[in-house]
Amino acid sequence: MNAHTPVVESATSAASLSVNALAQPLIASLLERQAELGIAARRDERGVLIVDAGIEAPGSVAAGAEIAAICMGGLGTVRVRANSGASARDEWPTMVEIASAQPVLACLASQYAGWSLAASKEETGGKKFFALGSGPARSLSCKEPLYEDLGYRDVSKHGCLVLEVDRVPPEVVIDKILRYCALEARGLTLILTPTASRAGTTQVVARALEVALHKAHVLGFALGDIVEGSASAPLPPPAREAIEAMGRTNDAILYGGRVHLTVNGSDEDARDLAQRMPSSASRDFGRSFAEIFTEYEYDFYRIDPALFAPAEVWVSSLATGRTWHAGATRFDLLHPRWLGEA
Amino acid sequence: MNAHTPVVESATSAASLSVNALAQPLIASLLERQAELGIAARRDERGVLIVDAGIEAPGSVAAGAEIAAICMGGLGTVRVRANSGASARDEWPTMVEIASAQPVLACLASQYAGWSLAASKEETGGKKFFALGSGPARSLSCKEPLYEDLGYRDVSKHGCLVLEVDRVPPEVVIDKILRYCALEARGLTLILTPTASRAGTTQVVARALEVALHKAHVLGFALGDIVEGSASAPLPPPAREAIEAMGRTNDAILYGGRVHLTVNGSDEDARDLAQRMPSSASRDFGRSFAEIFTEYEYDFYRIDPALFAPAEVWVSSLATGRTWHAGATRFDLLHPRWLGEA
Amino acid sequence: MNAHTPVVESATSAASLSVNALAQPLIASLLERQAELGIAARRDERGVLIVDAGIEAPGSVAAGAEIAAICMGGLGTVRVRANSGASARDEWPTMVEIASAQPVLACLASQYAGWSLAASKEETGGKKFFALGSGPARSLSCKEPLYEDLGYRDVSKHGCLVLEVDRVPPEVVIDKILRYCALEARGLTLILTPTASRAGTTQVVARALEVALHKAHVLGFALGDIVEGSASAPLPPPAREAIEAMGRTNDAILYGGRVHLTVNGSDEDARDLAQRMPSSASRDFGRSFAEIFTEYEYDFYRIDPALFAPAEVWVSSLATGRTWHAGATRFDLLHPRWLGEA
Repeated sequence: MNAHTPVVESATSAASLSVNALAQPLIASLLERQAELGIAARRDERGVLIVDAGIEAPGSVAAGAEIAAICMGGLGTVRVRANSGASARDEWPTMVEIASAQPVLACLASQYAGWSLAASKEETGGKKFFALGSGPARSLSCKEPLYEDLGYRDVSKHGCLVLEVDRVPPEVVIDKILRYCALEARGLTLILTPTASRAGTTQVVARALEVALHKAHVLGFALGDIVEGSASAPLPPPAREAIEAMGRTNDAILYGGRVHLTVNGSDEDARDLAQRMPSSASRDFGRSFAEIFTEYEYDFYRIDPALFAPAEVWVSSLATGRTWHAGATRFDLLHPRWLGEA
Repeated sequence: MNAHTPVVESATSAASLSVNALAQPLIASLLERQAELGIAARRDERGVLIVDAGIEAPGSVAAGAEIAAICMGGLGTVRVRANSGASARDEWPTMVEIASAQPVLACLASQYAGWSLAASKEETGGKKFFALGSGPARSLSCKEPLYEDLGYRDVSKHGCLVLEVDRVPPEVVIDKILRYCALEARGLTLILTPTASRAGTTQVVARALEVALHKAHVLGFALGDIVEGSASAPLPPPAREAIEAMGRTNDAILYGGRVHLTVNGSDEDARDLAQRMPSSASRDFGRSFAEIFTEYEYDFYRIDPALFAPAEVWVSSLATGRTWHAGATRFDLLHPRWLGEA
Repeated sequence: MNAHTPVVESATSAASLSVNALAQPLIASLLERQAELGIAARRDERGVLIVDAGIEAPGSVAAGAEIAAICMGGLGTVRVRANSGASARDEWPTMVEIASAQPVLACLASQYAGWSLAASKEETGGKKFFALGSGPARSLSCKEPLYEDLGYRDVSKHGCLVLEVDRVPPEVVIDKILRYCALEARGLTLILTPTASRAGTTQVVARALEVALHKAHVLGFALGDIVEGSASAPLPPPAREAIEAMGRTNDAILYGGRVHLTVNGSDEDARDLAQRMPSSASRDFGRSFAEIFTEYEYDFYRIDPALFAPAEVWVSSLATGRTWHAGATRFDLLHPRWLGEA
C-alpha cells in the first residue's frame, strides 16, 4: 500500500466512526467533574462552550488525561500511573500510558496539532493570535493536506478542538472554526490548555503515540498498515518559562517515550520502520529541545524533523509475527533538566 | 478441604453469581464498539449472535481484552498495558494483566477451554470440525467432569461461548450447544477468535491466571482454598504459521507469565503449591511449545502436563500471612523466537 | 501560605465538592457487587447500612480497593495491579496505586483515620469499644482539630464511615456518629474492615498517599500548596496475629511506599519537604513496625511520629518545575518478614 493511498475508505466500519460523536460523552463527563479536576466551563455570548483547563482555573493532571482522551476522539485510552517498579528511582515516578485500536484515526485524524489558526492584529483588534488546533473538530474541516492521505472526514453537529493557548481565541478565529467545521455555535467545544499548565503538560506528553504515527507518515510508511499502537512517557511538572515548558513536553517523548506499533505489510518495511523511527536517528539527538530551539534562534524549521519521535520503538509485523526494536529511553538526559540538585 | 469436595456450594453468595448474566453487559458494550474494535456481529438464521473477532473482521488487541473479560464471566479484570518501566527493554513492551476476586469461578467455571465440540464430516456435510469451547456457557451445560469438583452450575437464559476457530461452527455443533445449555437460539452468543488473530492471541495470553488455577487443580490443591488471584504475561503479535501461533501464546505464559495466588489451608500446602506450580517443574521446560509439540509429532498428550503453568509463582497463605515464590520469568527464552534479527 | 490558614475556602470550586455525595455512587456499585466481592450488607434495626467486609463475610482485595476509593470521598483512584516488570521478583508481585487531583480533600478531609470513637463498658453494656473512624462522614462532624486547618466542612444527608474493627460498633457509638454528623439513620453507611482481613489490609495500604499528606502537615507544610498526589505500595496478604497485622500494613508504606507530590510555594519549601518526608528521616527507621511497637510496650505515642511516612518521596515544584527526590523503597526490609523460607 502506498503511503498516499487513502487509508480509511476501504474499511467501511472504521470510516463510519465519528471522532466528534465519540468525544461527546467524554466531554460530558469532564464537565460533571469540573470542581474535582480544577477546570471551568462557560458558554460565550454565541453559545460556544469554552473550557478553561489552566488559564484562570488551575486544571490538573487528571484533567489533562481526560482532555487527551477527548483529543483522540474517544478512540484511545490515556492513563496516568504511579511507576510502582524499582526502576522508578532511576527513571520517573509518574508515567502516562496511551493505547489505541484505531491509532491512525485517534492520533492523526484527531489528536495531531495540525490546524493553523492565526489572526492578525487587524483581525483581532488587539494582539495577534496563533495556535495549532488539535482534536476531533479538525476532521470536520479537513483543512490540512494530511486528510488527503487519511481519506477520512467526519460529519457531526458536534465538534471539539483543543488549543494549547493561554487566552481565549479571538472571535475571528472562533468564527473561522465554526465556518470551516460547518457547526452551530452551541455545537462547538473549545478546550484551552496552556503549555505551562498541569493539564497542558499532560495532554502534550499523552501525544507519545501520535508523535510515532506522525514520524511513520514522514518516513513514508503506509498509514493504513498501522493497526495497533501503545506508548508510554514520563510526566514531569510543567516548567514555568515558555521555551522550557514547550521543550520539556517534547523531551518527555524524545528521551522518555516508548512506543509499540503492530503493522501489516512486509517484514522489511516493519524492520525499517523500527530502525528509522527513534529520535536517536536524528542529528539533533542528545540535547534538550529547549537548548536546540534556542541554538536555532527559535526557528522551528531548522530543527531536524527526524528528532520528533519517541526514544524507544518496537514494531511487530503481522506478516511474520516478528518484532523489531530500536532506540532506548534516556532518563540520564532528562534528569539533569528535571531534577533539583540533591 | 479435599480437592474433590465441591468448592462453591457452601459459599451461598458466590454460588448465586451467574457468570452468563454478568457477561451480558460486557457483550452489549462489545457490540457498541464494533467499528472501533474491528469486529463484526450478526445473527444467523436462527437468531444466534455470531461475533467475528478475527476471521473476516480484523479484530484487535482491545477486542481480545474485552473478550477475555467476557470469557471470565464478568468476574475478572483484563488490562493490556504499555510496560513503562526500564525493564521493558529487556522484557517486552506490552503486557496483559489479569485479576479476579473469584478466581475459581472466573477461570475454571468460565474461562477454561474445556468443552470439546466436535463434528464428523458426516455431521457437517463438509469438513470435520473440532474446537474447545471456553467461557460462561460451559457452566450452563456442565458437560465436563471438572464441574463435579466445582459444584457450580449456572442457570440463565443467556449464554456465551468463545471459540478459538477460523470458521463459523457447523449447525450441528451450534444445535448441540443450544441443547446442552438449554438456550433459545437468540439467547446464545458465539465469539470467534482465530489463534493467529490479534484478538485471539490476546484472549489466550489473558489465560495466565486460568493456567495457574488449572495446574493447582492438577496438583490436587483444594480449589475452594484459592481466594484471590492475579497474573501478568507479555503480549506478542500473533504468529502466522498455525503451530507457531498456538505455541507462541503458550510460551507467553510458560516463560513470561507471573501469578500471585492467595490461599486458605495450611502453610505447608501453600508452600508446596508455589514450589510445584511453575513451568520449570516440568521435564519439558526450556524449549518453545512449538518445538516440543513438533518433536512429539503433534501428539498433545505426550507433552508433560506439568509444563502448562506460569513461569513465576507467588502464593500467599492466609493461615500465617507468609508468601512463597518459585520460578522466574525467562524472557531470554522468548526473545529468540519473538524478535527479528537486529 | 501558612500551614494554619484554611486551605479550601478560597477555592470556591473545590469547597463545593461533597465527599459524601461523591461517595454515594461508589457505595451503590459496591452493594451491587456484594457476591463477587465477598461482602455482606444489611440495615440494622434503625436503618443504618452496615457493610461487613471481613468479619463474617470473607471480603476481598477488590472490595478493599473499592472501599479505599469510597474512603477518599470519590476524589481518588485506587488500583490493585500485578507488578508485571522484572523488578517484581526483587520487590513484590502485587501493588496498590493511588492518585488524586484533590489530595488534601481526598486524603485528609476524608480518608485519614482521625475520628476517635470510644465507648466504655458502662456505655456498651459489654466490652469497651475503640475505633478510629475514617472516610467522608468525618467531614460532616468535623470533630477533629485538623478541620480548622482544612477549612472544609461537608453538608450532606448521606454519610459514610470506614471502621477498622472486627465487630459491629455498639449502639452508643452509632448514636454518637448520627448525632455529630446530623444524619438520619438511613443516611449513614458504616463499612467494617478488620485489620487482619484482605479488604482491611488493602484499604490501609491504599493510605500511602494519605500518610504523605499527613506527614506534610506534621512538618508544617502549607496543605493548600499540595495540588497533585500519587503513590504506590506493595500489597501483602493480611497477617494473622494482631500486632503483626497492624505492623504489616504500616511496613508496606514505611518501607515499600513511593509518593509523588506536586506543590505550589517556594522551591526551597518543596526541596525541604522532599528531604524531610521519607520514613528514613526517623530515628526508628529500619525495623518493622511490629518490632518497634512491641519494644515500646505497645505505647503508640513513644514511636517517633516522623516514622509514619512513605519510603521514597518525589516532590515537584510548580514555582520552577524542578523535582526533588529523597529516600528509597527497601524491599530488603520487607522480605524477611513477609516471605516464607525457601
